[in-house]
Amino acid sequence: MTQVLNAINARTGDVLGHVDATTPEALDAHCRAAAHAFADWQTTTGETRAKLLRALAAGLEAEREVLVPLADQETALGAGRLNGELDRTAFQLRRFADIAERGESFARVDDPAVAGPPPAGHPAMQRWSLPLGPVAMFSASNFPFAFSVLGGDTASALAAGCPVVIKAHSGHLLLSAAVFALCQRVLKAEGLPAGLIGMVQGGGRDVGVRLVRHPAIAAGAFTGSTQGGAALAAEAAARPRPIPFFGELGSVNPVVATPAELAANGAALATTLAGSIALGCGQFCTNPGVIVLIDGDGGRAINDSFVEQLRTALATQQPHAMLTRAMRGAFEAGVGHWAEAGATLLLSEPAAADQPPRPVLAQTSAQAFVATPALREEVFGPSSLVVRAADVSEALQVLQAVGGSLTVTLWGTHTDTADHRALVRGAMAIAGRVLFAGVPTGVAVTAAQQHGGPWPSSTRPESTSVGDAALSRFLRPVCLQDAPAWLLQRGGRPV
Amino acid sequence: MTQVLNAINARTGDVLGHVDATTPEALDAHCRAAAHAFADWQTTTGETRAKLLRALAAGLEAEREVLVPLADQETALGAGRLNGELDRTAFQLRRFADIAERGESFARVDDPAVAGPPPAGHPAMQRWSLPLGPVAMFSASNFPFAFSVLGGDTASALAAGCPVVIKAHSGHLLLSAAVFALCQRVLKAEGLPAGLIGMVQGGGRDVGVRLVRHPAIAAGAFTGSTQGGAALAAEAAARPRPIPFFGELGSVNPVVATPAELAANGAALATTLAGSIALGCGQFCTNPGVIVLIDGDGGRAINDSFVEQLRTALATQQPHAMLTRAMRGAFEAGVGHWAEAGATLLLSEPAAADQPPRPVLAQTSAQAFVATPALREEVFGPSSLVVRAADVSEALQVLQAVGGSLTVTLWGTHTDTADHRALVRGAMAIAGRVLFAGVPTGVAVTAAQQHGGPWPSSTRPESTSVGDAALSRFLRPVCLQDAPAWLLQRGGRPV
Repeated sequence: MTQVLNAINARTGDVLGHVDATTPEALDAHCRAAAHAFADWQTTTGETRAKLLRALAAGLEAEREVLVPLADQETALGAGRLNGELDRTAFQLRRFADIAERGESFARVDDPAVAGPPPAGHPAMQRWSLPLGPVAMFSASNFPFAFSVLGGDTASALAAGCPVVIKAHSGHLLLSAAVFALCQRVLKAEGLPAGLIGMVQGGGRDVGVRLVRHPAIAAGAFTGSTQGGAALAAEAAARPRPIPFFGELGSVNPVVATPAELAANGAALATTLAGSIALGCGQFCTNPGVIVLIDGDGGRAINDSFVEQLRTALATQQPHAMLTRAMRGAFEAGVGHWAEAGATLLLSEPAAADQPPRPVLAQTSAQAFVATPALREEVFGPSSLVVRAADVSEALQVLQAVGGSLTVTLWGTHTDTADHRALVRGAMAIAGRVLFAGVPTGVAVTAAQQHGGPWPSSTRPESTSVGDAALSRFLRPVCLQDAPAWLLQRGGRPV
Repeated sequence: MTQVLNAINARTGDVLGHVDATTPEALDAHCRAAAHAFADWQTTTGETRAKLLRALAAGLEAEREVLVPLADQETALGAGRLNGELDRTAFQLRRFADIAERGESFARVDDPAVAGPPPAGHPAMQRWSLPLGPVAMFSASNFPFAFSVLGGDTASALAAGCPVVIKAHSGHLLLSAAVFALCQRVLKAEGLPAGLIGMVQGGGRDVGVRLVRHPAIAAGAFTGSTQGGAALAAEAAARPRPIPFFGELGSVNPVVATPAELAANGAALATTLAGSIALGCGQFCTNPGVIVLIDGDGGRAINDSFVEQLRTALATQQPHAMLTRAMRGAFEAGVGHWAEAGATLLLSEPAAADQPPRPVLAQTSAQAFVATPALREEVFGPSSLVVRAADVSEALQVLQAVGGSLTVTLWGTHTDTADHRALVRGAMAIAGRVLFAGVPTGVAVTAAQQHGGPWPSSTRPESTSVGDAALSRFLRPVCLQDAPAWLLQRGGRPV
């Protein structure tokens, strides 16, 4: 009997429609079709890949008027944000089209033969970058366009030469189905096999686990919770043939502010920070979840004043509904864990279950933060935990206790002092991206972007899921030794 | 009570000396010292790193007359091979010195700020490559210089800016101690902390597991068996904070020969292949363990003749003693598993337990190979399994059943035909390196080398443990956003 999944209105909780869960047989068919499509797609030129990616971008834009309202119903993220996210998603697809066309990600290393005995002498060798194979792509709830069916993982995998089989997120099933239908129309129009982009969906963990375990799958890409990502990473490692699994997981994104910076710009920074904490109802991987303030050397009074400014600014924020009822429950539970672990709730207003949540601000000491794992857990939603450190040394201990984060933001390290150098070292030791101005929400799609960091922020600190380097996750080097002329004339690819 | 480890003469089994197993307290001290050394070493210039690596290379060469005889006693690999291996090890150290000095592995990506709203507009961003931190390095038995204390993993980690804590291999404890003492003298002479290179040893799995679990360790590098590497990789993944683990594991290194090639050059190829199978008593990661012959289209008689030539050539080989008694036992057990799984033993002469093993040649069908996992297991030692395929399609199934291999060698694909293209595709799909001439033993230390492949040949198919790219295993990108001028003037490194 086919399991039926409900598509839910994020604001009202009403059922918007139904989608059938993917049967094991259908999942197997999608994976086999992807493997079949890979045989040809892996040898396509950059131009062919670019043409598909641009057609997908154009398709998204052409269906904006249908897709954005659907996304808004299922996610409550609002038309403004969702239109911007669709723009970003089309931008990403076109950016990876350009990258595929330019080809430098696939640049080969040539080692002409060197006469003589080893170790200096060696045969002619060339190092090529080949696509891994079909990628199991796990959509995120919080970016229904940019980290979903046609998001960065799909764009970079297709550009690399890999088909994808997408696990649709249960938080936006109708949107996923609509974007997937768009993909299929574009593939057909381009004369490409339907199996290049597959999609599955399911209620529990079964479908995802089955997908990552399928023998035809060569890599996994995931954006979501630490718990979910760790479970799937373990499945990828426990296969008879383990595969790479690129998970972008939870992150508390510490913001460290010096008293001097807060004395100069506290009011403006409080407003900016409050906006970042409540933006998108706090449902960003880069939400600033920990604010580290340094009380020594006369900082205490400045910090007290800043915390009050932040509390006030946060109280005026009006977050929208969360993505799902389950997330709303998890948010309230997370705040409860903070309180149970001894944090002081500075801002915590009740909100009815059918209303959007209210922003939360809590406070604890650096010593408690370092000693108490529960205080270091990500609370997904419009909330932040102020951590009061006695001095720079304690602030560094806080960063070390966080251990891994997508971002660390440093406010007030404009000058070259021993303390500032120590803070930069501490930030670089745990983060994928270190900001010296602004807020961590907003992740630019650029060549230099690094969206990934040490555990628990990702399963592969050397990889990024945003920016140009995301493509290289799906490549593997192969060295050809004494390759025959015909193969080199074919560009190393036995088409 | 301290556990005492025996150093053993590989030829006679006599005890050569004793070494104390590392206590948990001493292991902790080594890891802490490595973390302490990392604080400064991560910010050293390429010149400083190069100077240390060159001094280590010179130190190895200066102590050749002591080290090679010691290595020969413990490994039975012979002075000729061991002198060559020492040369290669010094070559590697100097090559990574050059790489550290040139600095291109650390090349940063600059994204100047772009005005305007996202997705096109973004702040100033720079992507840097930072060293991961102290590396737990697990030595291999079969390369007592090149994959041991001062081997490629140590050289590339130090060049990357990472200290190492080495797990000495129990097969060459005295040599490891001597090379480690050399390291300590060089570090002292260079004015560098002793903790930059640490070493531990132990009898069972305890010391290795404790090492990979230590909180100060940031990555693992391993060369050895699939079983041992998989166990340590699982430990690395099961840490409270999982770390990257780069394991180079077992590999059967298929050689596929076309009948046309064997008809033309069978006698010479049989001699070359027999030499490669017996070289170093077959104790190479790239030992040709599977020979795939294609019987169709009149190939059977040619192949029968080649197998007989190979059997004869192999029978004349005189392998030296194996590295350890345990390996000798595993070799005989492995050959026994082939026979139990139905392979025909074409060459299998008895040898007394205190004598070197005799070479083994076995044969099976492609269908049996594909159906029987026991036939696909690596048998470490002077042995090879001939697999008779009916046609190219069956040969491709054999490659697919192997699944992952450091190398695949293709003999006779000089011309551009559909069959040859299919074989190249099949080889590239499972191998890190594809050879079109010669034998897979002998791994050049070059820019284009790829020594790593899909599971079970390595835990990270995108990484290599030999060649220039080995360094990048130990780097992690960090993006600086709106970095202050003082930090950029310091080259992004808060020294």
